[in-house]
Amino acid sequence: MKIVLAKNSGFCFGVKRAINIALDAAKDNRDIVTLGPIIHNPQMVKKLENEGVRSVDNPDDIDNQPTIIRSHGVEKEVKKALIEKGIEVIDATCPYVSKAQQHVEALEEAGYKVVILGDENHPEVIAMRSYVKGEAIIVASAKDLPEKKINRVGIISQTTRKFEDLQKLVSALLPLCHEMRVINTICNATSVRQLSTIELAKKSDLMIVIGGKNSSNTKMLAKICENLVKTFHIETSYEIDKKWFNGDLNVGLTAGASTPDWIIVEVYNKINKCMGNNTDIVKNVEDIPGFKEE
Amino acid sequence: MKIVLAKNSGFCFGVKRAINIALDAAKDNRDIVTLGPIIHNPQMVKKLENEGVRSVDNPDDIDNQPTIIRSHGVEKEVKKALIEKGIEVIDATCPYVSKAQQHVEALEEAGYKVVILGDENHPEVIAMRSYVKGEAIIVASAKDLPEKKINRVGIISQTTRKFEDLQKLVSALLPLCHEMRVINTICNATSVRQLSTIELAKKSDLMIVIGGKNSSNTKMLAKICENLVKTFHIETSYEIDKKWFNGDLNVGLTAGASTPDWIIVEVYNKINKCMGNNTDIVKNVEDIPGFKEE
Repeated sequence: MKIVLAKNSGFCFGVKRAINIALDAAKDNRDIVTLGPIIHNPQMVKKLENEGVRSVDNPDDIDNQPTIIRSHGVEKEVKKALIEKGIEVIDATCPYVSKAQQHVEALEEAGYKVVILGDENHPEVIAMRSYVKGEAIIVASAKDLPEKKINRVGIISQTTRKFEDLQKLVSALLPLCHEMRVINTICNATSVRQLSTIELAKKSDLMIVIGGKNSSNTKMLAKICENLVKTFHIETSYEIDKKWFNGDLNVGLTAGASTPDWIIVEVYNKINKCMGNNTDIVKNVEDIPGFKEE
Repeated sequence: MKIVLAKNSGFCFGVKRAINIALDAAKDNRDIVTLGPIIHNPQMVKKLENEGVRSVDNPDDIDNQPTIIRSHGVEKEVKKALIEKGIEVIDATCPYVSKAQQHVEALEEAGYKVVILGDENHPEVIAMRSYVKGEAIIVASAKDLPEKKINRVGIISQTTRKFEDLQKLVSALLPLCHEMRVINTICNATSVRQLSTIELAKKSDLMIVIGGKNSSNTKMLAKICENLVKTFHIETSYEIDKKWFNGDLNVGLTAGASTPDWIIVEVYNKINKCMGNNTDIVKNVEDIPGFKEE
């Protein structure tokens, strides 16, 4: 019997950084807002509320509180308007996302027509597009490209897209343009989490996927696991049913990029208890039992 | 019975321009040299010799004569050395090739590692590479790429390469770099000649391919035709054998990018004679019989 945690799981660099920024800010002030939920994890959002950090959806609802910009970033004009109103802006935009925003701006300034590979409704893409003064072309895949010639094209990607989709887009654009500049802004956190989850699921009898039911990357991990082995997607340890763990099982644990360590620790300990406190302990989240630090 | 000339055949823009520059120069001076044969067509080279324009292979063999740089271009240092010696340099480099040389130089200056798609022994590529101060990577195809990461890569192509090969190279380089800039320097003269030759060969009983036996693009046209229909590759009308034209034939004519119009005219008229001066006349080279102008 053992419980193994996927080699790469839980918070990515940008999310961890944003959460730490929020918790730090909360030490000095008990009334802080974030523009949109800081991550797609209801438990973490709740925890932050208890610390005095609450989410508002609309900038007009900010009443001079210090305002955290979440890891996805925010539209250029929104940030500017907050600053002009004299509001203290705490920018927790993921540095990889900020870099992509700067690239978008620089590409347009250098005379390139900007093409963004991404989901036009995703907050990261909405923010990114705002750094283009003219009109950016946003495509979810190469298939969405308009069939027209563009002299000079500059390509940027939402940080969580698949590399293969960028490659297809580049191939499809090449015949349509004279000059192309591509800056690979894809962060491998997503693909690395998927690959190590696949690896683990192949060796497991049962997979437990931990993370927000509203988190796209967690849902994707669950989908990947379901294709390979029996899988449960849970948000917290309270959803665990002892009956799942009958027999001599190898249980695999994985967690989305917005799942905090303390939830992983709770889940691990609950499963361990269900299995008679009789499992081998496993690869990190700082070797569980009562792991803390935030 | 008819003789049809391929829609696109004979001199490309750059070759025509270089020949005209050479002939113009010969009007004022009966002792001119070209650095390397101006085109891969022995008859045209001979004709130019008669006008006082002869080819030398080595810059050291130039004895202060005005010197024509052929359409492929020449190494940057060679051109500089000629000018420093006080030799009059007449630059007939194809404007598309000059442009590619400028791009190569600018890419390196902007901090990109230059990758050239081309044949490293071809004069155009030898000249192009000389515009890079450091070390350019030259590959005949994506397969030749070194397996190492390059932070920022700038891609240029020899003007006569196939677009599909550029596309494959770009796809292969994308995972190896963070940023990529591609300038499509491929001239479609080659592909356009090949496509209209294929089109014609499919409708012909016999193809006559005209051009230097040392001309790569003419040899390629002959190879393409041989796969479709009976084909003869000739340099001049003197190689024509009346026996080839027995019966009610549709004869297709095509010519490489270095084949002068007067040779096409001679060949046409010879074939027409072989067929009893009884053929329909054909798509251009200014509607043949005695066509002149150069």
